[in-house]
Amino acid sequence: MKTVGIIGLGLIGGSLGLALKESGKYRILGYDRNSLHCEEATKLGLVDEVVPFDEIEKVDILFLAIPVDGIVEVLHQLKNPKEDITIIDMGSTKAKIVQSIPKRLRRNFIPAHPMAGTEKSGPSASMKSLYRDRVVVLCDLEESGEKQIQDAKEIFNLLEMKIIYMNSIEHDTHTAWISHLPHAISFSLANSVLAQENRESILNLSAGGFRDMSRLAKSSPKMWRDIFHQNRDNILSSISYFQSELEQFRLLIEEERWDELEKKMKEANRLHEIL
Amino acid sequence: MKTVGIIGLGLIGGSLGLALKESGKYRILGYDRNSLHCEEATKLGLVDEVVPFDEIEKVDILFLAIPVDGIVEVLHQLKNPKEDITIIDMGSTKAKIVQSIPKRLRRNFIPAHPMAGTEKSGPSASMKSLYRDRVVVLCDLEESGEKQIQDAKEIFNLLEMKIIYMNSIEHDTHTAWISHLPHAISFSLANSVLAQENRESILNLSAGGFRDMSRLAKSSPKMWRDIFHQNRDNILSSISYFQSELEQFRLLIEEERWDELEKKMKEANRLHEIL
Repeated sequence: MKTVGIIGLGLIGGSLGLALKESGKYRILGYDRNSLHCEEATKLGLVDEVVPFDEIEKVDILFLAIPVDGIVEVLHQLKNPKEDITIIDMGSTKAKIVQSIPKRLRRNFIPAHPMAGTEKSGPSASMKSLYRDRVVVLCDLEESGEKQIQDAKEIFNLLEMKIIYMNSIEHDTHTAWISHLPHAISFSLANSVLAQENRESILNLSAGGFRDMSRLAKSSPKMWRDIFHQNRDNILSSISYFQSELEQFRLLIEEERWDELEKKMKEANRLHEIL
Repeated sequence: MKTVGIIGLGLIGGSLGLALKESGKYRILGYDRNSLHCEEATKLGLVDEVVPFDEIEKVDILFLAIPVDGIVEVLHQLKNPKEDITIIDMGSTKAKIVQSIPKRLRRNFIPAHPMAGTEKSGPSASMKSLYRDRVVVLCDLEESGEKQIQDAKEIFNLLEMKIIYMNSIEHDTHTAWISHLPHAISFSLANSVLAQENRESILNLSAGGFRDMSRLAKSSPKMWRDIFHQNRDNILSSISYFQSELEQFRLLIEEERWDELEKKMKEANRLHEIL
């Protein structure tokens, strides 16, 4: 039976542990540098066994389910992994991670981004079904080994995920628009409303849109700090573009150009054809 | 058996018709100036009967479930309603509507805003359970008649809604922040991403946040044009405030002030305590 190691036992790593345990195909070891997470993960049965850092690298397949700056660090802390180990990172950015892989580990490495998650974090947020029917993006596989690609496909298929391929530079551009920009906006909207509104009004009136639009603002600050750090340039571009879109929208209201405003909203309605 | 009239047979009016029909307590008449909506509403059984405009005002309780500028118009088109008719508007803004009620109808009028809806519109979007467990805000009831207040409470209780009270000026301030600003942002985000991204990437990557953040951008442009019109000043203030929040957020990324960025996101996380 192959062994799977998971570094990081929060929502992403814990959910992976739960789903893989259920398959009965792997023995699952877990590691988290936060000892409270280790206790929780043990109690919740997210993995078969929690082990110290120097044992987690001895597995057949190693997942890195930690904030993206941590992934870069850990890659340099692995001392003596198996020669044909498969290392899969689950980070939301890809280009900087790919650039930082030590050369000796490049063929062992599969850069992956599962499009799954919730606004919750920590071991207790784990859900067996988090990955089912979701997309996972695999990047830059030309430089990964055949065995490693097979290991990754086997596991993501087992998780019932839809695998798509992208290069890491493209990945980071697309996710800046489609995932990272929405998070920046949600954090700023939440801060605006929390500064200006009282708890009771928020509770009573939030079904009018705020509930959906602020959900992402509950996400982990540490995780998102690293994402904004690693994908800084793309995110800055996407925020600036959005700022000019919103300013146009505001101007149409200020200048009472209602026909043009309605036209702008009709353009946005094209989303109906996609999502 | 009391008769209820519903002007506007889209999502809001149609869902009301469905829920009230089920109660078996009222005879429900409907009117819509769009003849296609009338046909659909008849086919879907949203009301007991679709009638012409001059008949819809002869009911005991009349709902106005149309865009807010339309509500102001219709209030002046009623010719000869029953003396003790109850008129309830379902609009998302309240101050301008209250100001525009003809004096002779003021005691008949109940300004209401149900915090319910979806991004869909039209008769076919109607759902029997749209209002259940949702909040409805009633405004400025000091100037409404006792009988009218009783009629409104009876119906909103029947719909299993939670009734809260606010004055119309306060209502429009709170909803500018908690509902109207999120819509302006969602429309602008959708327009940004539609301009910059392709259909396939949106489909594949939207689980990372965009799906939730763009849902409101599918809302009816006509409905929202009127809301931005009627609540213009409050909305302009809330957009400007949000713009400065987002600009601060962007600057922290640009200037790589990661600790402060993380602190900002932690502040936003306070939402966990409310929603």
